[in-house]
Amino acid sequence: MAHTLGKLAKALGLVAEGDATLPIVGAAEPAEAGPEELAIASTPAYAERLSEGRARAALLWDGADWQALGLSGAICPPRPRFAMSGLTAALDRGPGFPPGRHPSAVIDPRAELGPDVTVGALAVIEAGARIGARTVIGPQAYVGAGAEIGADGLVREGVRIGARVRIGARFVAQPGAVVGSDGFSFVTPEESGAERARATLGAEDAPAPAAQSWARIHSLGAVSIGDDVEIGAATCIDRGTIRDTVVGDGTKLDNLVQIAHNAVIGRDCVFAGHSGVAGSARVGDHVVMGGQAGVADNVTVGANVVIAAGTKVLSNVPAGRVMMGYPATRMETHVESYKALRRLPRLAREIAALKKAVSKPGASD
Amino acid sequence: MAHTLGKLAKALGLVAEGDATLPIVGAAEPAEAGPEELAIASTPAYAERLSEGRARAALLWDGADWQALGLSGAICPPRPRFAMSGLTAALDRGPGFPPGRHPSAVIDPRAELGPDVTVGALAVIEAGARIGARTVIGPQAYVGAGAEIGADGLVREGVRIGARVRIGARFVAQPGAVVGSDGFSFVTPEESGAERARATLGAEDAPAPAAQSWARIHSLGAVSIGDDVEIGAATCIDRGTIRDTVVGDGTKLDNLVQIAHNAVIGRDCVFAGHSGVAGSARVGDHVVMGGQAGVADNVTVGANVVIAAGTKVLSNVPAGRVMMGYPATRMETHVESYKALRRLPRLAREIAALKKAVSKPGASD
Amino acid sequence: MAHTLGKLAKALGLVAEGDATLPIVGAAEPAEAGPEELAIASTPAYAERLSEGRARAALLWDGADWQALGLSGAICPPRPRFAMSGLTAALDRGPGFPPGRHPSAVIDPRAELGPDVTVGALAVIEAGARIGARTVIGPQAYVGAGAEIGADGLVREGVRIGARVRIGARFVAQPGAVVGSDGFSFVTPEESGAERARATLGAEDAPAPAAQSWARIHSLGAVSIGDDVEIGAATCIDRGTIRDTVVGDGTKLDNLVQIAHNAVIGRDCVFAGHSGVAGSARVGDHVVMGGQAGVADNVTVGANVVIAAGTKVLSNVPAGRVMMGYPATRMETHVESYKALRRLPRLAREIAALKKAVSKPGASD
Repeated sequence: MAHTLGKLAKALGLVAEGDATLPIVGAAEPAEAGPEELAIASTPAYAERLSEGRARAALLWDGADWQALGLSGAICPPRPRFAMSGLTAALDRGPGFPPGRHPSAVIDPRAELGPDVTVGALAVIEAGARIGARTVIGPQAYVGAGAEIGADGLVREGVRIGARVRIGARFVAQPGAVVGSDGFSFVTPEESGAERARATLGAEDAPAPAAQSWARIHSLGAVSIGDDVEIGAATCIDRGTIRDTVVGDGTKLDNLVQIAHNAVIGRDCVFAGHSGVAGSARVGDHVVMGGQAGVADNVTVGANVVIAAGTKVLSNVPAGRVMMGYPATRMETHVESYKALRRLPRLAREIAALKKAVSKPGASD
Repeated sequence: MAHTLGKLAKALGLVAEGDATLPIVGAAEPAEAGPEELAIASTPAYAERLSEGRARAALLWDGADWQALGLSGAICPPRPRFAMSGLTAALDRGPGFPPGRHPSAVIDPRAELGPDVTVGALAVIEAGARIGARTVIGPQAYVGAGAEIGADGLVREGVRIGARVRIGARFVAQPGAVVGSDGFSFVTPEESGAERARATLGAEDAPAPAAQSWARIHSLGAVSIGDDVEIGAATCIDRGTIRDTVVGDGTKLDNLVQIAHNAVIGRDCVFAGHSGVAGSARVGDHVVMGGQAGVADNVTVGANVVIAAGTKVLSNVPAGRVMMGYPATRMETHVESYKALRRLPRLAREIAALKKAVSKPGASD
Repeated sequence: MAHTLGKLAKALGLVAEGDATLPIVGAAEPAEAGPEELAIASTPAYAERLSEGRARAALLWDGADWQALGLSGAICPPRPRFAMSGLTAALDRGPGFPPGRHPSAVIDPRAELGPDVTVGALAVIEAGARIGARTVIGPQAYVGAGAEIGADGLVREGVRIGARVRIGARFVAQPGAVVGSDGFSFVTPEESGAERARATLGAEDAPAPAAQSWARIHSLGAVSIGDDVEIGAATCIDRGTIRDTVVGDGTKLDNLVQIAHNAVIGRDCVFAGHSGVAGSARVGDHVVMGGQAGVADNVTVGANVVIAAGTKVLSNVPAGRVMMGYPATRMETHVESYKALRRLPRLAREIAALKKAVSKPGASD
């Protein structure tokens, strides 16, 4: 992981300013940086604290006066936040798994492992599984029968990939992630209370007079995941009922996210922690969803929609909308309603005064 | 898993229409079905796409004209959604675990395993655990000391069942589910800020002037789970403090659900993903809870209640209610309030106009 | 675990009333208690049911008349809820893991294990990891390369501690907890739709006309956790980007909690199930957060703040506040708005009547 400032800049498609031979062993915040660490100071506000640390080089902004900041060298990219991607990739020390196939792993001889696949201690790979070249299967991870994972993936410790799941290249899964749990789908012999509540919009009480038990609808489908997908710790993606649940290329899911059976998620979506997509919902490309937000079952969300944190989408959303609230509306509408709500107690007092004024003409203020 | 249409219909307690000898190897959506797949087309809208696929047989609705749809055979049940249960059970290929007890599993000799129990690779079964006949303990799963699991269960890969937990027959647990984590119960030497905030309903600021640390209340109880219970991936059920946390017969929990210490959940409940029940809450039979909904601690929810997605139940709910919102109210009340809120900005403008009209009599419109 | 009433009282720093020689093997609710179980009846209401059980001794309240309740002995602490901590600690039978280092565990010879460390079956401890004296690493748990865990900890079955994570003494982690997952941080080459939605507060639709893919910002930092921290089942704490994500001494996290990259959590905080703290947020000491609540990214929450269940904190909160709602406001403000909202439909009718009265003078009631 030892670099020089020049080589690091070159890896980002940039040219280092100043002394390109400075050794760089890691990155640090401006005030904590040592002499061989690159300080990350992408705005003038961050750069102010450079003098508290010992950095000789920093990641700054386009046009920054690195010499005036007392540095010997700098990288000054046009979009520093984007440069952080290449920079952190170059300096990442990785999960620390030993290379090779650990002798304690249980690998079925009918599994097909590509060249340079790593398999961690106590991992299990079942019959018919296929793992692409250079993919790392972490310690205690599980790859089910007939599952496929593409090349150059990183499946961290304790991840569970169920049978017949298909995953593309450059997949990253954080510890405890689950792909291929069974869908949550149950049915009663007769119409259930929940079905009736939906039909009547809750106008009727005591919706389930006859006690019924739930019968399982099994998941015959699997999960199909594109290339460049990343999923977070303890995130769960269920199998589909008849066809596969689908996650498109380039989509990123944070920790503790739920993707239910039959959902179809587009490409390049980003869903934050604790968000969820219910059964058979369809979410378009480039949708961004904040933390603890959700999309109800059977709903369609168009491309490029932004769903704010905590928002619950209960009906279809056209492409490009910015949504907020519960139930979700356009953010503008939500903010207007919300502001009005905050003024409502005062409004109520005004109405009381008006009533008094109108009912006793002549006594008005 | 190879069937004929006739045998499949018979397994559902039905009679096939048309050619009962048609071979069926799986199910598919109408447009994707191959000649040996049963197309699932339970409404006329779905059936329209049968011509795009190659299905010779389909699951249709009662009274459907299967011949007019160009099929050679069909199953036409009175409630197709319910028939999906038996149908998918018959066609389910399962999790793909090898049968038998894998030699890498660590099974304490003091554990009691019933006949035909499967134990997957690298599973751990501790002393005194008892596993009922034909139950499958998946790879890398854990069954703690003295825990009991009934017959015909399926405990998938990486599930954790803690010590002394008792579970009935036909239990299903998805990957990463946890039963028997310790309850989340802490206490400060003196009244804490949160206790005071509850007592004063938050009217007082700075509620915790004296800094205090939290002491753990250990969980001496375990978890007691009935028959026919299913729990989702990464779902967590905590132990009780003095007595067991309880989940009744037939209850189904989706992924990432939280059941806290001392909670008592009735029978045949269905809780969707990310929902939660806090400590010592009591939930009646046949309660349905949508995704990301929650029940606060010490609250009682009556039987047959339906709690909409995203709803937060903060106080007791009588039997049979349909609840929505935060805090939860009857769905009707919530919808009425919500509609009024959307009209509120206009209402505020009307009040301003009225004030003007009343304060300047004669100038009203 | 066998005690006498007197020894149990002494362990709590108290003196037993009555027969101190009564044997105590466990605790139970008043109606279920057997003759060698201590009944937990900390209020007169609970004590009413003592006669239904067979307890000879009970945990009561200060000044309780234990003889009048028909008991032979009692413990009557000044704050019974706090006494539950010591009492349950004394009676806890633990997770039931066999002592010692299980031969199936994979322990790198370069790991350093303190005296009397327990390592469960099929656990993995990587090179350079350091485990403090008497700490229990449960079955199937994982401790990454260079990770440190202090003394007297309990790491339960299937917990994942990532590389280079540092954890203090007396750490408790429930099954499936994850510390050291990679942060969820991605960047587009140009400004993304979500960035623009934030900048314009959602006023603009179709915010992402140009399709872009997300590039990963790797996590170079680790996680730093203080002493006396407990984390729940399937709770996830992400690594920091440049510096460590931090959790202060004495903080307790329930199940399924999300702590994102770069977050700094103070000491003695308590966060309930499904709550979350987004990236780079700062939460002060002694903050209490209810279930399904959340703190948005980059927000600062002051010390002693109480955040009610389901609340979403979207902006900074001064110390000592009690917060509720979405977006979070002072609980008082929220309750006032909420009550006004419930009266709003009636208010709307009143306004309609007023309009009529004002527009038709002389016709008012």
